[in-house]
Amino acid sequence: MHYQKGMLVAGALEGQVLLVTGGGTGLGAAMARYFLELGAKLVICSRKIETLKATASELEAVTGGQVVPLACDIRDYAALSEMYQEAKAHFGKIDGVINNAAANFISPTNRLSPNAFHTILDIVLKGTSNMTLIAGKDWIQDGKPGVFLNIVTTYAFTGSAYVVPSAAAKAGVLALTRSLAVEWAPHGIRSNAIAPGPFPTEGAWERLLPGHLAEKFDPVRRIPLGRVGEHQELANLAAYLISPYSAYINGEVITIDGGEWLQGAGQFNGFGQVKAEEWDALAAARKKGG
Amino acid sequence: MHYQKGMLVAGALEGQVLLVTGGGTGLGAAMARYFLELGAKLVICSRKIETLKATASELEAVTGGQVVPLACDIRDYAALSEMYQEAKAHFGKIDGVINNAAANFISPTNRLSPNAFHTILDIVLKGTSNMTLIAGKDWIQDGKPGVFLNIVTTYAFTGSAYVVPSAAAKAGVLALTRSLAVEWAPHGIRSNAIAPGPFPTEGAWERLLPGHLAEKFDPVRRIPLGRVGEHQELANLAAYLISPYSAYINGEVITIDGGEWLQGAGQFNGFGQVKAEEWDALAAARKKGG
Amino acid sequence: MHYQKGMLVAGALEGQVLLVTGGGTGLGAAMARYFLELGAKLVICSRKIETLKATASELEAVTGGQVVPLACDIRDYAALSEMYQEAKAHFGKIDGVINNAAANFISPTNRLSPNAFHTILDIVLKGTSNMTLIAGKDWIQDGKPGVFLNIVTTYAFTGSAYVVPSAAAKAGVLALTRSLAVEWAPHGIRSNAIAPGPFPTEGAWERLLPGHLAEKFDPVRRIPLGRVGEHQELANLAAYLISPYSAYINGEVITIDGGEWLQGAGQFNGFGQVKAEEWDALAAARKKGG
Amino acid sequence: MHYQKGMLVAGALEGQVLLVTGGGTGLGAAMARYFLELGAKLVICSRKIETLKATASELEAVTGGQVVPLACDIRDYAALSEMYQEAKAHFGKIDGVINNAAANFISPTNRLSPNAFHTILDIVLKGTSNMTLIAGKDWIQDGKPGVFLNIVTTYAFTGSAYVVPSAAAKAGVLALTRSLAVEWAPHGIRSNAIAPGPFPTEGAWERLLPGHLAEKFDPVRRIPLGRVGEHQELANLAAYLISPYSAYINGEVITIDGGEWLQGAGQFNGFGQVKAEEWDALAAARKKGG
Repeated sequence: MHYQKGMLVAGALEGQVLLVTGGGTGLGAAMARYFLELGAKLVICSRKIETLKATASELEAVTGGQVVPLACDIRDYAALSEMYQEAKAHFGKIDGVINNAAANFISPTNRLSPNAFHTILDIVLKGTSNMTLIAGKDWIQDGKPGVFLNIVTTYAFTGSAYVVPSAAAKAGVLALTRSLAVEWAPHGIRSNAIAPGPFPTEGAWERLLPGHLAEKFDPVRRIPLGRVGEHQELANLAAYLISPYSAYINGEVITIDGGEWLQGAGQFNGFGQVKAEEWDALAAARKKGG
Repeated sequence: MHYQKGMLVAGALEGQVLLVTGGGTGLGAAMARYFLELGAKLVICSRKIETLKATASELEAVTGGQVVPLACDIRDYAALSEMYQEAKAHFGKIDGVINNAAANFISPTNRLSPNAFHTILDIVLKGTSNMTLIAGKDWIQDGKPGVFLNIVTTYAFTGSAYVVPSAAAKAGVLALTRSLAVEWAPHGIRSNAIAPGPFPTEGAWERLLPGHLAEKFDPVRRIPLGRVGEHQELANLAAYLISPYSAYINGEVITIDGGEWLQGAGQFNGFGQVKAEEWDALAAARKKGG
Repeated sequence: MHYQKGMLVAGALEGQVLLVTGGGTGLGAAMARYFLELGAKLVICSRKIETLKATASELEAVTGGQVVPLACDIRDYAALSEMYQEAKAHFGKIDGVINNAAANFISPTNRLSPNAFHTILDIVLKGTSNMTLIAGKDWIQDGKPGVFLNIVTTYAFTGSAYVVPSAAAKAGVLALTRSLAVEWAPHGIRSNAIAPGPFPTEGAWERLLPGHLAEKFDPVRRIPLGRVGEHQELANLAAYLISPYSAYINGEVITIDGGEWLQGAGQFNGFGQVKAEEWDALAAARKKGG
Repeated sequence: MHYQKGMLVAGALEGQVLLVTGGGTGLGAAMARYFLELGAKLVICSRKIETLKATASELEAVTGGQVVPLACDIRDYAALSEMYQEAKAHFGKIDGVINNAAANFISPTNRLSPNAFHTILDIVLKGTSNMTLIAGKDWIQDGKPGVFLNIVTTYAFTGSAYVVPSAAAKAGVLALTRSLAVEWAPHGIRSNAIAPGPFPTEGAWERLLPGHLAEKFDPVRRIPLGRVGEHQELANLAAYLISPYSAYINGEVITIDGGEWLQGAGQFNGFGQVKAEEWDALAAARKKGG
């Protein structure tokens, strides 16, 4: 399958230093790995230094590249700023930031404590704003170009029940993307986003929704293409958007979900369950009637 | 129920002459009736003069207003132009146009003949463009303000399977609305649209989808508010948008669908089926786990 | 001018108790006034009790209605919850909440301190989330229907430079609106939003942008209709959306900006500056050429 | 510059037969050339056989690939169907269709004859629908997967004055894309679109807007990134979307415009003209004020 292979020419990210928040696990780690294969040097950060170190070692072993793991709580601006400076000191520069760190849980909104609600807003929106402010200020001060790639969700624009603080925060990140794409472009800074559909990662889906519920709400049924996404497919898109090959895409959010959100949205999409002979009968009735 | 009553102050459309295409039946007739109640004079047009005449008589009887029925095929620019001039001659002016005429049928796209596909495009998009061009040219030449109100659908922006020519044509009408809202505003011409969800009209739904299929695809299940719309609710919104009270709304499409398209679109909206005790278990697991 | 008059039938909000955050000044007070005229009882809240009291007295004097002013910082969940309970105790119920409180300032994003950025996020997004959580939990617990109306901006969906924290926060509020429109509809709770263009309020625009800058960036040039909005126009739309007459509109954001955002967005909209004789020359060239 | 080089791994389109409408000139030819470099075999069609033949020869000479030029008026379903069958007969199959053929002219809408308006609708929307119906029916009948890539514009969703029939038609094509992405996905057919900003092609812009007008309306001023697009940048995106590497992107429209539409849309984006010392003064005033 093509979508299990890298798509960009070798060395497409040669010489670039990229910082991936939430890069220790799941999709963050999958993107990181492909960036390394394409020649980038990486900084990955998240809250758990053990996980980060293990991932960094593994990525270095597999790709032969360089990965610096740095622990940080992105809600803490001062600590995050220090982390950024340490990363910059190590490699001499940062060329791009992938804002991928997030937090979420599924619950009726009226069951959420204000604390729970605020925590998601803080990690996702305040955290991303912090990282963006730190890198943007640094690039502008140095007169250096840069690229932001923000990982959002399709419910950043459609909204979604049961993940409401995440929806609100991700929508904020999307607006951040579009706003800075205009404001910071004259400084040579591009901003884009990806809205992924279901790309299952070991553990994550189960953590979000254990046992029989995961089965009951199998996302595959919601997806026109009839399958979930492969990590390499997301990594291909991310590598393109962080690379200079996408230099004229700016302020854009690209959905990669197999058509999931559209399937639910379109008023008559449910008619896929009508059978061939029922369509025959309908067509015959139309001819007769009109 | 408030939504079965008119909402605007008496006389809100006093002195206005409005032209409603597809005004002989269904929602067109329902809007026409409320416009009359608010003091407007009306021209209604469609292809079948008998239906138009019957509706005009009925509306006049019920409201005490004036309704001129004029038959026309909106695909025929010359004939439509003549109709418009006749209407204008009758009342001395036309103040607003409600582009409501449409055609549709439900079918897999690959079962459609090119003829069938073109017919929908021609009636919906070419027809609306014709009506808009005729009224707009006339208003601009006379230096007279005017208002357009175009009836589209939610799948004008989401797309929808099985009604594809209609989706394409209605999307075109929406772009027409937004484009002319800017271009013709300096001439005093406003343009807006309504995207209605399910507002069943006698016969229409059955014609579109007979028998057991209508039951199988009961739209109510798709609607967060759990009911279809009442004609007066649409008429209230339409009267507002065609009246001077909405003078600062321009280039806008207002969705009135009970939340239908959003319910399908949002990734986790299906979790409404999770039961209270399952949410309890989930919350307990979260506390334990993290 | 129609748009300086109220549009709804008398008594349209009779018996309703509405809570308006940020209701002490500007557009909040303008909406509050019209809600009173239509028969509603009001609670207005903001941080400054003196301003609130003065506005409450003035509104009561002009309309003969009842207004309870309650001071509160919407960032403080506990205090806001207390305020809500006090309001509920006073009138016996709350039927609708207008989330109108906001904060903003114009600045290049890279000149913002993290503190400044967080403050806007906290007031606008955390504040609105708090108010929404409190009212929603209360309504669901009481098994009582309710309505939310959230005031956002057009840059909630387009983004905007120089007001980036506000853009991110308002986008979050929009996602909140769409998400809860689906999730809480089965509890009888509707959620909608308004995205107003320029509705100048005494002092506000000047505070945002003093002196010659205000003149240099006159918003009127950005607006197809060639004027800013009147407060009553916004109040008419708000009253409609908070009233039962809009019972089938749910999850919708209605833009009322004279076409402002569209004028900038459309690729060829700037050609309004081409002169008639230049269009003549273009048409002639086209005929000749091909 | 990276954006003047191809980005996909060699052979990314090996074995694929692609049909590009409007492939004889401009962006169509630029995309065709890159598809050939990546190993695809091509059919290019448009109305003028001489242009097509010249382009085909040139492309074959430069790339060493195979290009079949076939003349056709896409408005004529029967002729287009014949052309498709001839192309299929030549290569044994068609794997993907790039709907790129279009027509446009800039004019106030009220100056357009109905004929002119209809011609654009017919070429752009009816033509694209024809090509899509023909290929889709063929693929479904053969049980063969396929890919559509439709070239639209940013004003397909924003609308635009002075190019109104094009806006309406392109919006229709976008709805077609989203609708069939859902309907035909179970048949293994993907559908996506690209909305390009300004990618000047020799002659095209001048034809659209001759002489001093072209200078007066220099698109570069509208673009945050401060430049127009390079053909290879569009070709890179198009090759990605037509290739199996984008297999999980479906129903999506990707804007590649340097941020153009957003720059106009965002309410405060014009404040880029405020000078550093004015921002200083503003910040000082804010501190003083409160």
